[in-house]
Amino acid sequence: MAAKFFLLALLALSFSRARASDPSQLQDFCVADRTSQVFVNGFACKDPKTAVVEDFHFSGLHMAGNASNKQGSAVTAVNVAHIAGLNTLGISLARVDYAQYGQNPPHIHPRASEGLIHFQYNCGTKEAIAIAALSSKNPGVITIANAVFASKPSISDDIVAKAFQVDKKIVEHIQAQF
Amino acid sequence: MAAKFFLLALLALSFSRARASDPSQLQDFCVADRTSQVFVNGFACKDPKTAVVEDFHFSGLHMAGNASNKQGSAVTAVNVAHIAGLNTLGISLARVDYAQYGQNPPHIHPRASEGLIHFQYNCGTKEAIAIAALSSKNPGVITIANAVFASKPSISDDIVAKAFQVDKKIVEHIQAQF
Amino acid sequence: MAAKFFLLALLALSFSRARASDPSQLQDFCVADRTSQVFVNGFACKDPKTAVVEDFHFSGLHMAGNASNKQGSAVTAVNVAHIAGLNTLGISLARVDYAQYGQNPPHIHPRASEGLIHFQYNCGTKEAIAIAALSSKNPGVITIANAVFASKPSISDDIVAKAFQVDKKIVEHIQAQF
Amino acid sequence: MAAKFFLLALLALSFSRARASDPSQLQDFCVADRTSQVFVNGFACKDPKTAVVEDFHFSGLHMAGNASNKQGSAVTAVNVAHIAGLNTLGISLARVDYAQYGQNPPHIHPRASEGLIHFQYNCGTKEAIAIAALSSKNPGVITIANAVFASKPSISDDIVAKAFQVDKKIVEHIQAQF
Amino acid sequence: MAAKFFLLALLALSFSRARASDPSQLQDFCVADRTSQVFVNGFACKDPKTAVVEDFHFSGLHMAGNASNKQGSAVTAVNVAHIAGLNTLGISLARVDYAQYGQNPPHIHPRASEGLIHFQYNCGTKEAIAIAALSSKNPGVITIANAVFASKPSISDDIVAKAFQVDKKIVEHIQAQF
Amino acid sequence: MAAKFFLLALLALSFSRARASDPSQLQDFCVADRTSQVFVNGFACKDPKTAVVEDFHFSGLHMAGNASNKQGSAVTAVNVAHIAGLNTLGISLARVDYAQYGQNPPHIHPRASEGLIHFQYNCGTKEAIAIAALSSKNPGVITIANAVFASKPSISDDIVAKAFQVDKKIVEHIQAQF
Repeated sequence: MAAKFFLLALLALSFSRARASDPSQLQDFCVADRTSQVFVNGFACKDPKTAVVEDFHFSGLHMAGNASNKQGSAVTAVNVAHIAGLNTLGISLARVDYAQYGQNPPHIHPRASEGLIHFQYNCGTKEAIAIAALSSKNPGVITIANAVFASKPSISDDIVAKAFQVDKKIVEHIQAQF
Repeated sequence: MAAKFFLLALLALSFSRARASDPSQLQDFCVADRTSQVFVNGFACKDPKTAVVEDFHFSGLHMAGNASNKQGSAVTAVNVAHIAGLNTLGISLARVDYAQYGQNPPHIHPRASEGLIHFQYNCGTKEAIAIAALSSKNPGVITIANAVFASKPSISDDIVAKAFQVDKKIVEHIQAQF
Repeated sequence: MAAKFFLLALLALSFSRARASDPSQLQDFCVADRTSQVFVNGFACKDPKTAVVEDFHFSGLHMAGNASNKQGSAVTAVNVAHIAGLNTLGISLARVDYAQYGQNPPHIHPRASEGLIHFQYNCGTKEAIAIAALSSKNPGVITIANAVFASKPSISDDIVAKAFQVDKKIVEHIQAQF
Repeated sequence: MAAKFFLLALLALSFSRARASDPSQLQDFCVADRTSQVFVNGFACKDPKTAVVEDFHFSGLHMAGNASNKQGSAVTAVNVAHIAGLNTLGISLARVDYAQYGQNPPHIHPRASEGLIHFQYNCGTKEAIAIAALSSKNPGVITIANAVFASKPSISDDIVAKAFQVDKKIVEHIQAQF
Repeated sequence: MAAKFFLLALLALSFSRARASDPSQLQDFCVADRTSQVFVNGFACKDPKTAVVEDFHFSGLHMAGNASNKQGSAVTAVNVAHIAGLNTLGISLARVDYAQYGQNPPHIHPRASEGLIHFQYNCGTKEAIAIAALSSKNPGVITIANAVFASKPSISDDIVAKAFQVDKKIVEHIQAQF
Repeated sequence: MAAKFFLLALLALSFSRARASDPSQLQDFCVADRTSQVFVNGFACKDPKTAVVEDFHFSGLHMAGNASNKQGSAVTAVNVAHIAGLNTLGISLARVDYAQYGQNPPHIHPRASEGLIHFQYNCGTKEAIAIAALSSKNPGVITIANAVFASKPSISDDIVAKAFQVDKKIVEHIQAQF
């Protein structure tokens, strides 16, 4: 029941994510060749004569991610990194598992989905699951807290302290959590 | 179990659907005003000051569609016709319910998803469910058999008979099923 | 006279075909290198220093295609497969010859032109010619009847029979024509 | 014979024109409402319920343009201004008639086709015809000589003289021809 | 000297911002009508016959912004909100003034520019100025700290505390600064 | 003072330039590998592991171009040819220096910016500087006078003379200036 309610809530949320779009496809399929030594915008393709069924298939969305962590959530992404045949198709999926009161913390998707910074929170007393769609084969994700407080190389304490208008000690305290 | 297997199979299938992309969004949101007397490419928007929570929400994907029909399948679409806030966001979802041995017959999506004509078939002995993502707020669907044999206005028997290289009586027989 | 009328009719038809668009060009020209061992979305280009006049030229649209076939039509396509210099330019042409009462049977173009499934029929008593433009260097074509009844690998009789709501014998009869 | 040769030459030329692309179509059709008091990027559409056959048809490409002018050429354009149903479809056509030794003088298409400034010249001893395709419903055309020497408001003689590095008298002489 | 160095540094930074792109322009110009009661993706246009010189002009980039604030920076944006004629042109500019040790705090641009969250910091001992270009007429800006700690409606303390893995008191302390 | 006024004027001018857009970026960065033997639409990328700070940096916009030439202007372009990291980002910059009464003669940008043929003229009595933004990593520039009168291979005198409706001697005179 909680899961059902949550799924619906998430679908609404997922809409606010989609904005940018990958360039159009120029042939029937272009399976990403992730071992290629040629790098292009996106991925070079395998010789189409070598495409196999496995290039278009992923098994795993039926398995729960492990949400026993600080945020109480786990994302199982299914994008071009997981299905080479998604290359040039401009779409991907994700499964998010939420523990009781778990959250997928504030984040953005730099290539497929923006609008505002968004998050999901499981306000129910049961575990929940969401299926989200993103309008890129490789949407990316930038979790705000990690990007600001745990980037590598790190952002200077001075800059973060001024940005958040707090004492450097608080910045260092937050950084220590990551 | 069958449902799980099928979900995975469908996900693979859904990838072959996505190709074209809606134009980019030019503001934070643009809720479709479906009562507007102004028609544009897509939809005119409501005055943003009048946007409400309901513009971004849909409840119903948790409910099974009625697959007790000739094809043994039912599609519950969730696009800009159902969620006005999807306007300009370039993405939509669909739930497909399949009866035992049911199929979502050969079709194409003229605005969001192509590649080859595609279909899904529930080869399992249990009901199955799929969640599919499409890269348009308004992907459209053209079911091949209906478009050829049940279009309005209808395509002349002569033309269909020649296209399928069969006797006109067979064409008329098929047309009578729709 | 019939030819003239038909040309005009075809031009109107061709409009309903165009929808998707290739990604923009990023340099003055990018001649497709069809012998490249590097595969990308579209085609890799020749070293621009090796481009020659022949890369931008096609001779043959003045020659009638042989429409003495079951459909009574012949398509002469001129796309990136025929003119390497069309690569990245997002446009192609086709000449269609129609015998008396010939037709270009119901089809779609997966990359450059959709809308609805479309066909052309020469209702006149003379041969006719059409010049059509498509908004992709590589629009592709899916002839409905062939895709459903003559695909390789073939679609199961059971599935096609249910999709068209006819007996499997009729499906097998149609398949035998191809 | 000259006409045939010329057609082929023109097709090659027309390829160098196509680059940019209109935004994708978001519904089956969106017939331009050219009397609308609402102005948008492109055109507002008619209420789709009021679309008629004439919105998708143009008769006239079979008629020769009058090439008895200084340039020896005449362009018959068929774009959204002539066929309202072309709106949102991203393609248009043009017929060009050339007198003996006529030319379609150096020009560019600001919305659908560029690359380099291009022209066509009928080097044959007979009249010639070309059919060109452009990748926009409203490609526009800027004839170089007119834009520089006959723009309204006009460009100062001083500026044109310096741009072309000639005496102002020559600029004034050229301007007088237009 | 510091200003010069900084300008160059900023130019490099500005590159990491650009990614998405507005839909193409479909006419020579489409001046935004910001008083229109018709809302579309982007802006409706003025009747082109009423366009005036002022629609294409902005005066003010030569004036320093007031950087005497907590962040030590001031952004003067020049986008479609300031120049109506920028509508449909897909580009905008900004001037950023930095006090000594001032910063433009971590932020993203949801419509025109992403990649990673970015910021600029004036490490010099003099005031500095940057001119940045963004690939949208209406790029938007989301300042991370404000979006997380000062959004309206506000994000629950519980959620923010978990996202940043700190005590709620620290969250409340930070919120109090905004 | 003149410089300030001119900067503002140029900003207005630069807006009229932007129209087309590069395809979207498909990863965080894709540094152009200009020594690659693989040619694609745009540029192949370096192995991302080999990216260095210098790939994202350009020093030189603080230096005046030498405007002591016939046109009295100098363009310092900063595009993907100068900053490899601009690849796939769809934006570039240029600095233009103008001598007293100098001009950047009539030109177009085939990939990033059009509308009408445009130019800038320094009507002031002092040197002036402009910073312009263009919506492509590789916008290109076609200076009208050079393209018509100094192209290689050259356009026949006959054709240019007819296009500009002047005597061939005038054409030859103009050609001699370049």
